[in-house]
Amino acid sequence: MSALPSLRDARGSGPAVVALGGGHGLSATLSALRLMTDRITAVVTVADDGGSSGRLRDELGVLPPGDLRMALAALCDDSEWGRTWRDVLQHRFSSDGALDRHAVGNLLIVALWELLDDTVEGLDWVGRLLGARGRVLPMVSVPLRIEADVVHADGARERVCGQVSVATTPGRIEHLRLEPQDPPACPEAVAAIEAADWVVLGPGSWYTSVMPHLLVPGLRDALHRTSARTILTLNLSPESGETEGMRADEYLDALHAHAPELRVDAVVADPGAVDDVGELGAASERLGARLLLRQVSRGDGTPLHDPLRLAAAFRDVVEGFLGDVGTRADDAR
Amino acid sequence: MSALPSLRDARGSGPAVVALGGGHGLSATLSALRLMTDRITAVVTVADDGGSSGRLRDELGVLPPGDLRMALAALCDDSEWGRTWRDVLQHRFSSDGALDRHAVGNLLIVALWELLDDTVEGLDWVGRLLGARGRVLPMVSVPLRIEADVVHADGARERVCGQVSVATTPGRIEHLRLEPQDPPACPEAVAAIEAADWVVLGPGSWYTSVMPHLLVPGLRDALHRTSARTILTLNLSPESGETEGMRADEYLDALHAHAPELRVDAVVADPGAVDDVGELGAASERLGARLLLRQVSRGDGTPLHDPLRLAAAFRDVVEGFLGDVGTRADDAR
Repeated sequence: MSALPSLRDARGSGPAVVALGGGHGLSATLSALRLMTDRITAVVTVADDGGSSGRLRDELGVLPPGDLRMALAALCDDSEWGRTWRDVLQHRFSSDGALDRHAVGNLLIVALWELLDDTVEGLDWVGRLLGARGRVLPMVSVPLRIEADVVHADGARERVCGQVSVATTPGRIEHLRLEPQDPPACPEAVAAIEAADWVVLGPGSWYTSVMPHLLVPGLRDALHRTSARTILTLNLSPESGETEGMRADEYLDALHAHAPELRVDAVVADPGAVDDVGELGAASERLGARLLLRQVSRGDGTPLHDPLRLAAAFRDVVEGFLGDVGTRADDAR
Repeated sequence: MSALPSLRDARGSGPAVVALGGGHGLSATLSALRLMTDRITAVVTVADDGGSSGRLRDELGVLPPGDLRMALAALCDDSEWGRTWRDVLQHRFSSDGALDRHAVGNLLIVALWELLDDTVEGLDWVGRLLGARGRVLPMVSVPLRIEADVVHADGARERVCGQVSVATTPGRIEHLRLEPQDPPACPEAVAAIEAADWVVLGPGSWYTSVMPHLLVPGLRDALHRTSARTILTLNLSPESGETEGMRADEYLDALHAHAPELRVDAVVADPGAVDDVGELGAASERLGARLLLRQVSRGDGTPLHDPLRLAAAFRDVVEGFLGDVGTRADDAR
């Protein structure tokens, strides 16, 4: 195995890591990665159709900016300047009127898009404002709709459209699709995946934040082509509607069903979120991955990843691979 | 006369200048002043109740940010960074929906106010973002309402409330008032006036941007106390509603009627906007001022001040005062 760059090196740069996802899950990953490297590229889902993002998408015909804003916020420089502008971007108005719940960063990102007429350049300007460690890119250049077949408890099958509906309709999601079906992958995202040392998927809303990337042909092909190692971080708890009742190993099988050629090198899971380590180990092997069980939760009962523990788990993966001493499922018990 | 600092000196600082006003008139003044000095403080009217500012004021209960935004934009650093963020701040959304015509900078300023809970600190952060040459302050810390008695052509007298109504109701404005009547002057604005070398009033909407400052007791007292010299720049054309049919000298008389103790050192007027130089010279003398007639318009037929010509006129005033060779009205003909 060729040597990969390890943790943040003396130059303060570190390995090139691409994180795919959206929402709070991606923010947690980015908060962890920034402890390891400055060479971060976030590739973000753009299928949101709810909240401030959904309203901006409807009113102005733009990409939903919310997940992009959260990713940028997670990468802000740890200075008074970076933190202040992060807080401004994350600030939401509260009123009885038209601005209620709009996030200021969403408005700022959209303004840059309209002004510069270039999605990536607009995000780069926000990144510069925040002194962001790394770059945030949309997975594709057009707003997406997510569609899914949802199988209800009585066996009835329903076609559900839109990220919010897919995420909240009770039932088992059987087949996930994008509309348009063959959206143009962001070229800078493809290039980043191809040049990466590591690719990180998850955690996050499994069907609406993590898996959409694998349905974009240009991104899926780049993930097949790249020599980067891939880490998959599992969620800490199922989400009502989207993954209600799913076991940890079923997350992997859902991924495999939608992207059969995807090879994963390491699966990171919290022991507290795994009922059957044997099943999860087997599902990991079906993806070609080793399983690393580590506490990555905050441990306060909330289903939230702790950036420091997640960074430590990523380090264990990176160092394990470097030393070729992968951690097996049963090591952790 | 004590020596005053002249044009931008070797340290790149220049004289301390406070510009009072609002809207496009204040922007023109600031665009001119930045050619002369980095020590600029803009003290801005906060009585606007129309447009994006009026909607924000109504929806969120904040100071109207629009005139503050325009002043900040005029002071932006002349670099790609400063110009880009200026353009973002000045960008307005265009849609059939709730965001239509909202200026992005208004939203950003309000967000900083809500986040920091400090009006001046919020504006200073936007100034830092723009690399602004100088500082922008609100004249008072509370939103104002402007009221006026308007005398119609048939002699009927009407009480008109609100900046937009005062600015657009046809008729002669006789008595201008603020609500609240004794608003607290922004302490930083008072301190800037007291420490200034020069104070500049106008151009701008005479009753709704220029004169409101003189109705704030704290600012009026500071203008009486300061040892700064005061320059008054007249408008290039009357504004329909507000100053329709007013002669140049009547601008000065209106000012004198509302602030009898105000001493002005120089009146800058464009010869093309003056019908009767003798009357204007006499009105200037009633304020204690010398009259400087210079082309300060763009000269393209639009009633807009040219920043370079205005800067040249300010320089003539400053150098004239320094050398104690004031320009008289009849010098310009």
